[in-house]
This record gives sequence, structure tokens and C-alpha cells, in this order.
Amino acid sequence: MPSVEKDRLDPWGETFVGNYERLHSEFGIERMEPILARLKEPSPHIRRGIDFGHRDLGRVIDAVDQDKPFAVMSGIKPSGNFHLGTKMTADDMIYFQSLSKRATVFYCIADVESYNDNGLSFAESSKIAVQNVADILALGLDPERAVVYKQSEEVRVMRLSAIFSSSVTNNMLRAIYGERQIGLYVSALIQMGDILMPQLKEFGGPKPVLVPVGADQDPHIRLARDIANAYKGDFGFVPPSAVYHKLMKSLDGATKMSKRSAASSFTLDEAPSSAAKKVMSAFTGGRASVEEQRRLGGEAEKCPVYDQYLYHFALEDDYARRVYDECYRGTRMCGDCKKELAAIVKRYLEEHRRRRDALMKDAEELLKSSRKRLATLAS
Amino acid sequence: MPSVEKDRLDPWGETFVGNYERLHSEFGIERMEPILARLKEPSPHIRRGIDFGHRDLGRVIDAVDQDKPFAVMSGIKPSGNFHLGTKMTADDMIYFQSLSKRATVFYCIADVESYNDNGLSFAESSKIAVQNVADILALGLDPERAVVYKQSEEVRVMRLSAIFSSSVTNNMLRAIYGERQIGLYVSALIQMGDILMPQLKEFGGPKPVLVPVGADQDPHIRLARDIANAYKGDFGFVPPSAVYHKLMKSLDGATKMSKRSAASSFTLDEAPSSAAKKVMSAFTGGRASVEEQRRLGGEAEKCPVYDQYLYHFALEDDYARRVYDECYRGTRMCGDCKKELAAIVKRYLEEHRRRRDALMKDAEELLKSSRKRLATLAS
Repeated sequence: MPSVEKDRLDPWGETFVGNYERLHSEFGIERMEPILARLKEPSPHIRRGIDFGHRDLGRVIDAVDQDKPFAVMSGIKPSGNFHLGTKMTADDMIYFQSLSKRATVFYCIADVESYNDNGLSFAESSKIAVQNVADILALGLDPERAVVYKQSEEVRVMRLSAIFSSSVTNNMLRAIYGERQIGLYVSALIQMGDILMPQLKEFGGPKPVLVPVGADQDPHIRLARDIANAYKGDFGFVPPSAVYHKLMKSLDGATKMSKRSAASSFTLDEAPSSAAKKVMSAFTGGRASVEEQRRLGGEAEKCPVYDQYLYHFALEDDYARRVYDECYRGTRMCGDCKKELAAIVKRYLEEHRRRRDALMKDAEELLKSSRKRLATLAS
Repeated sequence: MPSVEKDRLDPWGETFVGNYERLHSEFGIERMEPILARLKEPSPHIRRGIDFGHRDLGRVIDAVDQDKPFAVMSGIKPSGNFHLGTKMTADDMIYFQSLSKRATVFYCIADVESYNDNGLSFAESSKIAVQNVADILALGLDPERAVVYKQSEEVRVMRLSAIFSSSVTNNMLRAIYGERQIGLYVSALIQMGDILMPQLKEFGGPKPVLVPVGADQDPHIRLARDIANAYKGDFGFVPPSAVYHKLMKSLDGATKMSKRSAASSFTLDEAPSSAAKKVMSAFTGGRASVEEQRRLGGEAEKCPVYDQYLYHFALEDDYARRVYDECYRGTRMCGDCKKELAAIVKRYLEEHRRRRDALMKDAEELLKSSRKRLATLAS
């Protein structure tokens, strides 16, 4: 397994960050265990150790307990795919929104990034965004407590990023991200605007903000926390909190799931038969022969197929546990296991698409009403 | 005279750029002379050689001749001062606006920069901006063909700067500006948004845009022209044109007039008596003694007091010429010359303030109407 670069994580890289232990010991991401008892009904991600760490999650749980307002912030690059990685973040976002009536979700459509990275026009992004929003509505987002905005239209985000740029030094950026082109630094600064905007007075002022992210995104969180502290005097920012999820293994056995590699995963709007086919030809943690598999058991912890069960498709914990146990004990063969998953995935995608299609109008409505609401806010 | 750094100009520095010849030979700024015949009534700045160079000014004169639309773009950092340097740019802007009914002025209130550089809140900037706009109205701007906007509110500028950041490389920026902190690079990118915004389709699409600047601002112009070419496919940008004015000498004999040094110049809203006092204690191009001055004549070309006559306060060319001649022939003594200028400056500032105060309501109106107009433009 390729190791992480010695002293930094790469939010733009394809490197699989497998050594979660190091994230605790070297990067100071806190462990979930000590805080688990404070969550009445932990989400599947939390119960299964997929959300393996956090920073200042306690501040958000305090807000839940004391019935105080807080925000959950996330976003999507509308480049056409609602990816399983995006779904993980969305699931976390929706879970934390569900914990309190005082939670507001801020959901950013990162259309500036899709223009820069994928050459998508804002009009194209805009169309895709409707579907992406319908996707998260289908996953369970409560639109009543959600603000959805496009980066390209939200001057507050841009203004904050310009402000922050004046106090961030090249050395800070290099220490966090390594030597990068200015475009990536600017993109990071815009994300700082996204993360800190919910604390502007137009949105009720300083408050805890939770950002659910993949483990590789920690550099952004650290920079956001540094900036929050630097601008505490001007804005009263509370350093944002984060929960970190593990990264799914790629179906094709590559290091990390990548949007750039079609075989590595499937998307929520993929044809169910195509997704099923990818599952059937996936790399597994199985042994060289059936005989060996029976004797030694499979290696579920190395298996992207097992990841699919664990992260998304085994809705009941007992089921996920059973898949693991059978694999471990050598009674579950990879072919059967894949066939089982393929059927589940197929059904899931069919149902998701039905739900999503029924929500397209609501998605358009949410985008429109958010836009109106944002435009009329005093700045 | 301190020389320019070997291979670049510094738009943020205090270095006096005295070697204008070099700007032609090494930086490729075109000379004014060959194009002068195309201007029916050249402005005082042009007639007096203060506007010493240009890039693609011909494109703007073509638009004038063919009655086609073009824009004149400039801006001010609302940090409290309407400086004589700002007035020079404003005078140019107003002159080129006056050449055609098809000319639209885009005037940027750079409040993000005043926040970053001067710690001014947006509310403070907003107040100062009204006065700044009243200043340019008093100088002669036609508000009917002007769009005034605040950087902090104009998402198109910010969006463009974010877009441009993705294709500009660190090497390009280093070659143009030298090794700088990210904040200055971002500030330059925002200026690129300002310079290129008038060509967006909301504003009628691609067109010649003239940017009047001081000689030290050429790096921004070169970057804007590079970016215009890079995004020609997406936006159809025409590379912006520029006219360059010489930089006034500092009243206190320092290298370059600086907003940071109070004695180096005065502002349009300065108390007339204070400005007069600065004139009276100014450094001059005079000789060591009256006797020597009579015998050798003064050195007007080295004299900041003469600059004041030439750049701003000798409204008639004949008068400026007379001041020069008398100085050169040794019949004009520095004390008298300063006294004469001090009286003119005093009167000018009094009149300007009267005009400006009468235009404060119009300025507010222009800011408000521009804001409304910009908000309702399709993006």
C-alpha cells in the first residue's frame, strides 16, 4: 500500500490514505471512541468505525444538547457524478442535520471548480446541480433547513477568500499543501470562504460548523481553523469542527477510488446494470483458489467488495457483520458475495433513481428559494 | 535616481520609475508620438508628454472613429484619500470617456484592498467611496455612461479572478511580479477580473477596454493581456489597451509620491491651508543660491513643484511653458514660484471641495443606481 507522503496529506491527490493511526498520532485528529457515548443514536458510519476521527465534534454535540444553532457545511463539484465518496459525505451531513432542529446545512455547488478542473460552463454545471441536489434530497436532506448555493454566485464566499488571502503566507500554504500552483491555493482559499461563511452575521453570526470530510481533506480543515483563529477579532469565528471518514477502496484494486477512473467505482446515476457489472468484475480480498479460501478465509479488510457492503449497502449492522464473518471463516466465496452485492446495488440504484426523479422539482425549488434568500440577506 | 529593478517593474513598490525610455525599449510600451495625429483634441496630459506611452491605444481610437462601443476602466482604493496620482488616472479616464458617446466608464471601488491593506471595514469604505465618487464627478465624469461598483459586492470580478487563477502559473506570476506573498498575487488576479469584466456578455460582450495607469502598473496590464489571450476561446476577450502616465515627483524630494508619506503630496480633500504649507516647504529643482539660480537657471525637470504645475495646476499650456521658461532662464525664483503655486492650489482645492460637496447626493445616486443595474443584469 503506497504510504502517505512523509509530512503532509494531499487533498488533490489519488493517494490512498490507509494509515489512519498516523492521522491521530501525527496530525492530531481526535479519536471517535471517547465522544461516542455522547451521541444517542450514532449513524452507521460512526457505529462501523468509518467515521474514524474528528476535531472539536464536542462543540457540535454541545450545541445539539443545549438546543443552540449550528451549521453543517459540505459541497459537491457538479461535474456530473454523484459518487459513492460524495454519498459518504452527504450521509454524514444528513445525519448531523437530523440531530437537531437548530442545524442548518450549507451546501455548496462548486461550479467554479468544475469550470476550472473539468471545463464545464456555468450553464452546464447549473443543470447538473439540480440533479445533484435531487440526489441529496433522495438521500434524506431536509430542505427546510438547508441553504444551497453556487460558488460562482456567492460573493460572500469570494470576498472572504480574498480577505483571507492577505494574511495567509506562502510558507503556511507550502507547509500545509506543499509547493502548488497558485490555482490550487486559490481553490483552497475559496473553500475557506465556503467553510467560514455560515458564521457571518447575515447567517446568525458565529456558531459551531461541522464539516464532514474524507481523511485526505484534513489540510483544508487545518487551514480553516488557523484562519478562523486569525480572524477571530474581525468576525468572531469559532474554529470549525470536522468528522473524518475513511476512504473506500477502489473496485479495481487501485489505491484510492478516483472520479477519473470509471472502473474504480460507480455513481448514483449510473445504469444499474453497468454498476452491477463493475461489482462482478471487482478486485476482492479473496484467496488464490476456492480451496485456499475455505481453508484460510478471505481478507475482508483488503476487499473493496466488502467496503461496498460496509460503507453503503449493508443497511443493517448485523448483515455487514455476517458478510465479514462468513468471509473470515471461509464459508463465503467471492463469486457469490459479488453476485449478492450486485443484486443489492442494482435494486438500490433503481430505487434511488425513482426517488431522485420524483424530487427534481423540489431540487429546482430549493436552489431557487436559496438563491432568493441569499440575495435578499443584508451583507 | 534609484534605478528600476533590472527586469521588472513593481506596482506595489515606492520605487520611482524614472527611466521611461527603458519602458519603450525593454517592456515594449509604445510611444505616443506616432498615434497623436489620430486624436483631434489631445488632453493636457497627452500634449504635455505626461501620458508618455500606450499599448494598443489605436484600437480604442478605432472605436471612437467608427462609433463603436468601448470601455474605460479604472478604480480607486477607498482609503480616505483622493490623491493627486488618483486624479491623474481620473483625468485620463474622463478625457477618454469624453471622446465618444459609446464610451462606458467602469469604476471600481477597491474595498477588498482597503480592507486588506488598511484595515478599513466595508462600512467605512462605503462611506469614503461616496466622497471618492463625488470627487470624480467634480472632475468631470459623466455619470450617464459610468458603472461604479464595489469589488466586495461584484461577484463577476471575483468569479473571473478565481477562473483565471487556474491557468496562471507561479512562474508567470514570478516573472511578472517577482516572488510575492499569495495575497498580492490574489490582489493582482482580482484586478484582472476588474479589467476584463467589461467584456462579459452582460456588458455587451468583447470590446476594446482602455486602462489608464501609472507607468509602474504595467505588470498588471501585461498580465491582463496574457489572460485575455488565454481565455479568448471562452470569452472572446480583446486584449485590453492602456495609456501610461509618468509618476509625479514627491514634494518632499523622496523617490516617488507615496500615500504612506503625508509630506509627499496632498489630497483633494486636504485642508487648502495644509496643502499650501506643503507646497511652501517642498523640495525644488532650484540652485544653492539666488545668485546661482539667476546665473544657471533652475532645473524644472528635477522639480516636484514644477510637476505640480505641469501635471495639474497650470490649466493652460502657455502658462506651464512660461513657468518652465522662466525657471530655465533664471528669472523665476523658487520662493515666488512656490507662493504662486500655493495660491493656485488653495483656490483649486476650495473650488473642488465646493463642487464636490454639491455632488455628494449625485454620487450616492450613481452608486445606488449602478448597484441596482449590476444586480439585475443576467449573469
